[in-house]
Amino acid sequence: MATIAPHNSEMKKSFQPDDNQLSLLQRHSLFAAMPDNLVLNFNNAAQKVTRPKGSVLFLQDDPSEWFYLILSGWVKLFRETVDGSEAVLDMLTIGHVFGETAILDGNTHSVSGAVAEEAVMLRFPASMLRQAIAQHHDVALAMLASLSRQRKQQTQEIESLSMQNASQRIGCFMLRLCKLSDIAPYEMTLPYDKSLIAGRLGMQCETFSRALNKLRKETNITVKGAHVTIPDINRLAEYTCSCCSNEFPCKDLH
Amino acid sequence: MATIAPHNSEMKKSFQPDDNQLSLLQRHSLFAAMPDNLVLNFNNAAQKVTRPKGSVLFLQDDPSEWFYLILSGWVKLFRETVDGSEAVLDMLTIGHVFGETAILDGNTHSVSGAVAEEAVMLRFPASMLRQAIAQHHDVALAMLASLSRQRKQQTQEIESLSMQNASQRIGCFMLRLCKLSDIAPYEMTLPYDKSLIAGRLGMQCETFSRALNKLRKETNITVKGAHVTIPDINRLAEYTCSCCSNEFPCKDLH
Repeated sequence: MATIAPHNSEMKKSFQPDDNQLSLLQRHSLFAAMPDNLVLNFNNAAQKVTRPKGSVLFLQDDPSEWFYLILSGWVKLFRETVDGSEAVLDMLTIGHVFGETAILDGNTHSVSGAVAEEAVMLRFPASMLRQAIAQHHDVALAMLASLSRQRKQQTQEIESLSMQNASQRIGCFMLRLCKLSDIAPYEMTLPYDKSLIAGRLGMQCETFSRALNKLRKETNITVKGAHVTIPDINRLAEYTCSCCSNEFPCKDLH
Repeated sequence: MATIAPHNSEMKKSFQPDDNQLSLLQRHSLFAAMPDNLVLNFNNAAQKVTRPKGSVLFLQDDPSEWFYLILSGWVKLFRETVDGSEAVLDMLTIGHVFGETAILDGNTHSVSGAVAEEAVMLRFPASMLRQAIAQHHDVALAMLASLSRQRKQQTQEIESLSMQNASQRIGCFMLRLCKLSDIAPYEMTLPYDKSLIAGRLGMQCETFSRALNKLRKETNITVKGAHVTIPDINRLAEYTCSCCSNEFPCKDLH
């Protein structure tokens, strides 16, 4: 899945995990705004960490110590409800930065973060970023641009949760993974467990199964394990996007 | 409703619409971060506008010309879906600023804005704020703080839409309007039309009616027109907040 450019990745070009670390940072919108010597400082302070599936990186209300840039794997941001259920608030992969917004929020994480598929990450001291934003106007502007993109993505997500039914949300998830350069029928592999996809789309596993069955019947897609075949992408888009303010293909992806 | 302190109001103290305009600005977190002469410039450039219910202020994809501070009334931010339905993305009232984030987003509004209940507003040229952020580090930091609050509120909303059922979302809406200084039974007036509340909570009107009936049975509240009586707030909170990561009362309100 190294070629996925997920919703809020901020790499100027796609990158491979074995790229030179400094050049990686220089191509990320957050670090690219920094003076050269500051990028070098972040590069020197970076620690490469590998964590297995299930590792908890931080919990909601923890003090902010590190923020992370993902080199490979998947990380979920989540919260636990009073009755013990898990609300999956975001799923992040290569090129995503996370944990950085805690520095704007009383230096406390407002969500929990855990590894969903074994992840290699660079981690940086949160205090360095806090200081960089306070001292450098350009870094504050880069952070502002990043938050603005995140805000827009969250607005889209609120719209989707409000307006689309469960089958349409699954269809939307698939459409956003399609590479339009592919030749029909479109083939794709779901990027992580169906139970996580269900959580990410705000539904229980049973709801997900029922909604996926309905989507199959309505749009003729086939799903075998993690493998999805879409014989007619326009039919899927027609079914999925009628309850969305964006027409297919989504403007934020292309 | 002048005493409501809504979710993302950024006034340092509550205010009345007839307060001195300059002192209003000086107490708002966005303007308070500006040098005095810049606040004066904004004060001089401000235009007081009164718009009746239904007035459209801007449409999604419109170029950004003004941003607004609400002095009285209600404004809804919304999007229209491909099939013509309306997704209500936010409802804003006294003390809220809106339309300001377009300057971070290619100077284009990513949502539409319309008056939901007759509104008196101050409007300011968007270009002034764009320039202030580019020239003054402090203003960029204030905008960053504001976006961070909005991001946190949107995260909470995504959690709520993902995890709470329709009755719980209505209960949550009511609980967030309760002033805890009141003596039981808690009495409140719904702040705007039930159809708008339904839209704001991501449900159809029929779903809203069914969910409200269920909430009545589960928690003994009574609803007559816009008037709500809550005989036992703990019972309502127990029912509503079990599927939320926050316990009652919500930390962001108190």
